[in-house]
Amino acid sequence: MSGDKFEEGMEDSRQLVEGRNAVLEAFRSGRTIDKLYVLDGCKDGPVQTIVREARKNDTVIRFVARERLDQLSQTGRHQGVIAQAAAYAYASVEDILERARQKGEPPFLILLDGIEDPYNLGAIIRTANQAGAHGVIIPKRRAVGLTAVVARTSAGALNYTPVAKVTNLTATIQQLKKEGIWFVCADMAGELMYRQNLTGPIGLVVGSEGEGVSKLVRENCDMTAAIPMRGDIDSLNASVAAGILAYEIVRQRIAAI
Amino acid sequence: MSGDKFEEGMEDSRQLVEGRNAVLEAFRSGRTIDKLYVLDGCKDGPVQTIVREARKNDTVIRFVARERLDQLSQTGRHQGVIAQAAAYAYASVEDILERARQKGEPPFLILLDGIEDPYNLGAIIRTANQAGAHGVIIPKRRAVGLTAVVARTSAGALNYTPVAKVTNLTATIQQLKKEGIWFVCADMAGELMYRQNLTGPIGLVVGSEGEGVSKLVRENCDMTAAIPMRGDIDSLNASVAAGILAYEIVRQRIAAI
Repeated sequence: MSGDKFEEGMEDSRQLVEGRNAVLEAFRSGRTIDKLYVLDGCKDGPVQTIVREARKNDTVIRFVARERLDQLSQTGRHQGVIAQAAAYAYASVEDILERARQKGEPPFLILLDGIEDPYNLGAIIRTANQAGAHGVIIPKRRAVGLTAVVARTSAGALNYTPVAKVTNLTATIQQLKKEGIWFVCADMAGELMYRQNLTGPIGLVVGSEGEGVSKLVRENCDMTAAIPMRGDIDSLNASVAAGILAYEIVRQRIAAI
Repeated sequence: MSGDKFEEGMEDSRQLVEGRNAVLEAFRSGRTIDKLYVLDGCKDGPVQTIVREARKNDTVIRFVARERLDQLSQTGRHQGVIAQAAAYAYASVEDILERARQKGEPPFLILLDGIEDPYNLGAIIRTANQAGAHGVIIPKRRAVGLTAVVARTSAGALNYTPVAKVTNLTATIQQLKKEGIWFVCADMAGELMYRQNLTGPIGLVVGSEGEGVSKLVRENCDMTAAIPMRGDIDSLNASVAAGILAYEIVRQRIAAI
């Protein structure tokens, strides 16, 4: 499953928490757990307590075979549970809006639908910082979280630009629309970005390279924006596309002053 | 030495040519050799013949210790010479200009000064294709060449967008200026990109993330272009920055029609 990259788990091994007590403690201390791996079919009380704790926190849970846990394990003593903790703490969507308020600027958010490559996510957080976006919103599932690779690739931007993780991107968009934010969806078959009015409170929605923005999310956006494509191939690198679109918003905001 | 990434050589091992006969044959068949590794101090006739052939082709030569050759070697029989061949053939600068002529468009070139990351080079070739640039020019030294990683990351763009490799970027710029091409240098301390006239025959020069464009190359450019930076960190990812600048050229060209 591409949303569940093993290589990535490897590279971020410092963020793995193993064993029943350690994992339970991680949840109870409020540490952000991106994903919980549990031995499939395990009915032990302590493991069930951890699963309940994970459900309470709306953590993504993967029930896997013992071989998978053994393969992931660094210590060899996982006791049927391994938690993948975030390298950085997540912000809330409200934190991001508050940041816009404090700066006295119309909100500028970047929402990512299904970016699985940590290098792309890191580069986009870096771009969000430089473009003056107030924060980045990513979904809980089928996307990479704030791993150590993402933190490193962001070149320090993660210390400044808040990233929120939400359960349902569509629900978040619907809620933010009520607060007056307009959503523009990156769509190569959409309206040329120069022709759209991208000033004012805005959320830029960018999808993955392979799939683009999912149908449901796209249908909930107010408008589309296409980068002019004059070439022979299908698409741009996801972080390059996000950068070009984010800077079209910057350009229009500067021109509007 | 960062311009001589061992990891990269590893990943592109399919492009290594080893042994005296094989390496000499590679040169004589006209195959593009990005770099020649020679056992330091070796005075054998056949090795000297290879070195002469390499000098004739202006190939980058590295004289290295036996341990380094052993480490690079896939076959264990390098006989004191290993050549790193390009995964793709290079075009000439003239090929690139001819492509602009055939399309009846003012030349649009992207010149890269010291991009060492193959993922960035691949992403930039992809962007060059989509932005309608006629080709990419890279220097022979202190930069990654057309390796297999670059080809893969370009997502097919390398099949359409020619890449030329030149010995001296400054000399190439000086020569192309005589043909009426203007050069704009990416420079975060330069003039805001929106304020420059980027229509007409143009060469966009982008430097590495760490160093930017080198002093000599910058001094030979006609103007600078800065991406507005509203953030807390130093810079953007090199391929994102190249994408934003290339698309400012696209925007101005569209607006000028």
